[in-house]
Amino acid sequence: MKSNQNLIETLEEVAREVEPVIYEALSENASPEFQEVLIYPIKAGGKRIRPAVVLLSCEAAGGKPENALNAAAAIELVHNYTLIIDDIIDHGEVRRGMPTLWKKYGLTMALLAAVQYREVISELLLKSQNSRRLLSIVDSYIMRLVEGERLDVLFEQFGREDEPYVVEHRRMSVGFEDYIDMITRKTSSLYEASAMMGAIEAGAGEKIVESFKGFGLNLGISFQIVDDLLDLFGSASETGKQVGKDIIEHKLGNMLILKGLERMYGDEKQFFLNVLRSERVSEGDLEKALNILARTGVRENAVKEAWLFAEKAKSMLEIVPDSRAKRLLLELADYVVYRNK
Amino acid sequence: MKSNQNLIETLEEVAREVEPVIYEALSENASPEFQEVLIYPIKAGGKRIRPAVVLLSCEAAGGKPENALNAAAAIELVHNYTLIIDDIIDHGEVRRGMPTLWKKYGLTMALLAAVQYREVISELLLKSQNSRRLLSIVDSYIMRLVEGERLDVLFEQFGREDEPYVVEHRRMSVGFEDYIDMITRKTSSLYEASAMMGAIEAGAGEKIVESFKGFGLNLGISFQIVDDLLDLFGSASETGKQVGKDIIEHKLGNMLILKGLERMYGDEKQFFLNVLRSERVSEGDLEKALNILARTGVRENAVKEAWLFAEKAKSMLEIVPDSRAKRLLLELADYVVYRNK
Repeated sequence: MKSNQNLIETLEEVAREVEPVIYEALSENASPEFQEVLIYPIKAGGKRIRPAVVLLSCEAAGGKPENALNAAAAIELVHNYTLIIDDIIDHGEVRRGMPTLWKKYGLTMALLAAVQYREVISELLLKSQNSRRLLSIVDSYIMRLVEGERLDVLFEQFGREDEPYVVEHRRMSVGFEDYIDMITRKTSSLYEASAMMGAIEAGAGEKIVESFKGFGLNLGISFQIVDDLLDLFGSASETGKQVGKDIIEHKLGNMLILKGLERMYGDEKQFFLNVLRSERVSEGDLEKALNILARTGVRENAVKEAWLFAEKAKSMLEIVPDSRAKRLLLELADYVVYRNK
Repeated sequence: MKSNQNLIETLEEVAREVEPVIYEALSENASPEFQEVLIYPIKAGGKRIRPAVVLLSCEAAGGKPENALNAAAAIELVHNYTLIIDDIIDHGEVRRGMPTLWKKYGLTMALLAAVQYREVISELLLKSQNSRRLLSIVDSYIMRLVEGERLDVLFEQFGREDEPYVVEHRRMSVGFEDYIDMITRKTSSLYEASAMMGAIEAGAGEKIVESFKGFGLNLGISFQIVDDLLDLFGSASETGKQVGKDIIEHKLGNMLILKGLERMYGDEKQFFLNVLRSERVSEGDLEKALNILARTGVRENAVKEAWLFAEKAKSMLEIVPDSRAKRLLLELADYVVYRNK
């Protein structure tokens, strides 16, 4: 694998460019006391891949990246908005190696921050010349995200006894197509929106915008498959998340768990299912479950699937002329597959 | 007091016109399974005062009310969006005589519904010819609402031990100006936005838009003062809410509690403060506290204040030519003061 030094530097550059725009937008609309709460999730870090997709797509589509800066900031805020809500829904206590927003400031402040984020997103998009179109894209993609998140929760195999509606509507059987449908909504949406919005801010024609849309869609699927992999077999010190979180949270909406179960038999399958459906999972049982899962070969399978979607993403950009930005987007597709955080 | 038969009929007519728009907007963007959750808060009812303000302001400003129908639907959705969040924050279990959304469907579904509502609001506003302006108004007023809600929580005198940040930042001393500032953000915002948006959809000039803004602002303050009164001295069967909820929820951000405390002395004041700061309040103690409060004369004081703000609201429309719609808006200002639900 070739060095991705250029890409890493680009992501750092994106962070340096986008973060001040985010901080300013969050600050100018809130009382000083509330600002501390609002900037916490951004200060905690993040890879800034989505704003990089916006800025690089804009440049690759022939535009000036600075014209897409507000859109890039808005997309990173959409991402963080959904994480705030997601962490509340999943009772997630750690993200990026730090307490999640609700854990740090309580549910009330986290909810109010989420509502505020959504308004700041609109404010940023209203500054664009293409505001109507960008706002409409963000609307529809957030609604897809809602449906993806809803399905992800309904794919859980246990828990939420305090939410009888979820228990009643749970899907005990989930196919690979259901999974792809769910992650297309939950994760790809935002990558699709990022790439499209970059191209739109560049003033690109519909055919080019569609290419970027396809790039984002496939990149997002690839990203989520690797996310599923890292959740189970990543290193907590790299990802900033607890290893095996998806097993602990009873999620069938993880490709490796879904595919792995199809390949397990007898006692091992039963053991794995028991762990997935346990209220509390001991470290020993989690390790044993991960070993069973590893032996099914789903890790290799997931890497291959992620690679296939990344290749498909890259192929979508074939009609886009070569440029520094396009090469970085292609590198990004590789990075998404081979990253370790 | 004159009969408000015309106004009641108008509110019923508004409901008949706006509700189908809301149901359609909520349905067309969601899976059938999720639609049940989304329409629940609207089906539970509501007075539809805010959409009435939008439609009547549009008509009174010389426009066709049907042009403001999407804006009216959007405003009713903003109201319900904030109620969904508010009920989660305040652990409210009953609204409009029915279980609140989180109580009925669980926290996850309530949160996802709230996020969805916000997108449907944008979708509706994007349909307007004045979408940029309306979206910008809704953004800034929702942010004011967030700050109002944040202050309302910080004005609580007890509870939220699971939210140390709130406990640390609590305001133990709240003045009447702080209260007006808080309700101006928390409640008046939406009335202000409603009246403005109606006038904007009518294509009115800036001076007229400003008059409607002032009408909405003062109407909203009047509305909230009466809401505070009804919370403590209303009838549960009329309001659909528990009597004395603000005392049970330790709220100093209620005009009658705030003003009442200034007029209490000695043991009575101590008793009232103890009740306000109690984890659980017995029915007997609540009744005793309400009796103490009633004896301070704050009920009469609140009605007078609400009346003054309603009169101020009405005076704002002086430059608007007489019409059926204007007369209904003036009636509405009276209704807001003398309503019992």
